[in-house]
Amino acid sequence: MTADQQVSADALGAALEAIRERTPLVQAITNDVVTNFTANVLLAHGATIAMVDIPVEAGVFAGIADGLLINLGTPHAEQREAMLEAAASAHTIHTPWVLDPVAVGALPVRTELAAQLLEFSPTVIRGNASEILALAGQGGAGRGVDAHDSVDAALDAARRLSDRTGAVVAVSGAVDHTVHHESIVRVANGHPLLTRITGGGCALGAVMAAYLGVVDDALTATVAASAAYEVAAQDAAAVTAHPGTFQPAFLDALSTLTPARLIRKAQLS
Amino acid sequence: MTADQQVSADALGAALEAIRERTPLVQAITNDVVTNFTANVLLAHGATIAMVDIPVEAGVFAGIADGLLINLGTPHAEQREAMLEAAASAHTIHTPWVLDPVAVGALPVRTELAAQLLEFSPTVIRGNASEILALAGQGGAGRGVDAHDSVDAALDAARRLSDRTGAVVAVSGAVDHTVHHESIVRVANGHPLLTRITGGGCALGAVMAAYLGVVDDALTATVAASAAYEVAAQDAAAVTAHPGTFQPAFLDALSTLTPARLIRKAQLS
Amino acid sequence: MTADQQVSADALGAALEAIRERTPLVQAITNDVVTNFTANVLLAHGATIAMVDIPVEAGVFAGIADGLLINLGTPHAEQREAMLEAAASAHTIHTPWVLDPVAVGALPVRTELAAQLLEFSPTVIRGNASEILALAGQGGAGRGVDAHDSVDAALDAARRLSDRTGAVVAVSGAVDHTVHHESIVRVANGHPLLTRITGGGCALGAVMAAYLGVVDDALTATVAASAAYEVAAQDAAAVTAHPGTFQPAFLDALSTLTPARLIRKAQLS
Repeated sequence: MTADQQVSADALGAALEAIRERTPLVQAITNDVVTNFTANVLLAHGATIAMVDIPVEAGVFAGIADGLLINLGTPHAEQREAMLEAAASAHTIHTPWVLDPVAVGALPVRTELAAQLLEFSPTVIRGNASEILALAGQGGAGRGVDAHDSVDAALDAARRLSDRTGAVVAVSGAVDHTVHHESIVRVANGHPLLTRITGGGCALGAVMAAYLGVVDDALTATVAASAAYEVAAQDAAAVTAHPGTFQPAFLDALSTLTPARLIRKAQLS
Repeated sequence: MTADQQVSADALGAALEAIRERTPLVQAITNDVVTNFTANVLLAHGATIAMVDIPVEAGVFAGIADGLLINLGTPHAEQREAMLEAAASAHTIHTPWVLDPVAVGALPVRTELAAQLLEFSPTVIRGNASEILALAGQGGAGRGVDAHDSVDAALDAARRLSDRTGAVVAVSGAVDHTVHHESIVRVANGHPLLTRITGGGCALGAVMAAYLGVVDDALTATVAASAAYEVAAQDAAAVTAHPGTFQPAFLDALSTLTPARLIRKAQLS
Repeated sequence: MTADQQVSADALGAALEAIRERTPLVQAITNDVVTNFTANVLLAHGATIAMVDIPVEAGVFAGIADGLLINLGTPHAEQREAMLEAAASAHTIHTPWVLDPVAVGALPVRTELAAQLLEFSPTVIRGNASEILALAGQGGAGRGVDAHDSVDAALDAARRLSDRTGAVVAVSGAVDHTVHHESIVRVANGHPLLTRITGGGCALGAVMAAYLGVVDDALTATVAASAAYEVAAQDAAAVTAHPGTFQPAFLDALSTLTPARLIRKAQLS
């Protein structure tokens, strides 16, 4: 099976069209550093977002939202409880959800939390190579949020993690790899400026949750989110070479990206 | 009584002049998503802000600040305690304060909290139609932060809420309606780009708290805040049509808005 | 001893070169309002950052990071515990760390916390005149985050605080004064636009932690951080006169600043 058969460029265009038509509502339980940027990314792209991250409400809202993101960047005690509640609710109600296991393997509290969250069958797991290796049970401790294991080294781990959990596993890097059991789709539109602003990876997790809310096939949704996000980054990098002005240019590009342009620019393999 | 008699354009200009001369200090107890944007809005416009949101300190600071905002967007347990303490202190000391009941009616914890906070007589209540209907006791549960009840349908609720609590009630929408008992003032300067960035509504609550700190009449202060905020949004929308570049342009416009321009551009009725 | 002998412009250039070559990792335990801006400042300038601010993890990470910032802006209970743990760990392991005692003296919880944190010997203490006076034990209560004591009046307090704690003490103002026992270095590159955006001072604390991670002499590191930060602010102020567009321009300037330009533009005395 070729990548083209797995996810076609046309399917990406249809996914973006669905975002614009249906304005999916994403529940984001994410870290303190990126809440604002994450919300602006979703609003610019055509989705909506609410950060409902307290116990009692988090579970209720996971039944209202079209997709859920759980990002472990700053997992305060109250938020940890809300995460478990929301994941359980999403699992029961079949709300698709994304787990972003930031710095798992390097830090103990979130590593234990991630193991608990895996029990609720995330639809997508998104991380860098270190994080995916750690989740799959063979990672070394990284320096936190940095990716220092090569993406290639993580692909075996991603496949095993996918087999064990049923999740689509997205490994970020210079080229993004999205793995579902035996399938691998590469998106080669990434731009280094995305690593020079905070939340460049974290916000993508929320975009994946938005696409999962409007596209039934999880592999297609995940690849469409990555491709749309990274084509917009390339468009913004054509406007500016510096990280400060890149951020508003990127939000503008996310808002003006058309399905036709996404189909034309996406570099899948 | 006509709207012109209730709040004159000249009164708006005088209010903005007072902001610039007196640099009011706002205490904001607000949600995690919009803290940064809210602070930048106030600093750009000529006020200052401190987010003092922990128990013990929140009550002390409500006696120092010129105005207080309590926004229920992400009401963590410790913040809930701080909100009640600050509202009680503001009520006792007569610090004017704004309640922004984000997603009340849709989510249980904040709905109960809002009912408790109403006991401390907010000076202004600012929300979308769903939230005002919910607070007035007749709302349906919304999808969270979205406004899906029409503004007109909420005006009766706003009037009853104003009569019951004594507060000025500001209902946001394509046109903003500010209600105080029998008075209604409409501000028609809103721009859709304000809904494409996060915090577009939340930050306005903080601006209202700033104007309440320098203008005695609460209806005038609330209308002046809405008008200044929305005229600046229109000025920014003349610079860019996209949400990413809109945000810095909006902050610039808030900083350069003059009383004369506000008087000329405000569309009151 | 003259200022030139204390810290040379060439030493600043070498410090910036070290940042770019070694990409120091900063652990920031900072306030909710400025997390995003702080992270973007560090990433733009060539460092990396992780906000690890929960108990258990905070102490572990203080042993991994190259520098640590503790900023008391919104000291929630869980964060206070993490701060004490990280400071203790940094003290034991000799990770250099910066204390930014926001609003100390004016508010009780953080004032008590700052006293406890001083026991762990911060490498640098950075604050405005009011905060330094309060920490040194003679400050009046300010209106929170505002600086209303003159910088000059705080220099004696800074010297005593430095003598008592061994820390380098940086007093921010129109001109920044960095004090270490009998040494004083002035950096006169500040720009008022830095006070019109939120986090203008707070993010500098994180930049100091980055420089401490790559420069052995704490006085040199602190002065280099101030000078680089403020020269970038001046460069950004040459692009725009308004606070909204200043922020992206400032991040761009932080990323493009070269050692040669820093040496040429720094105004030390």
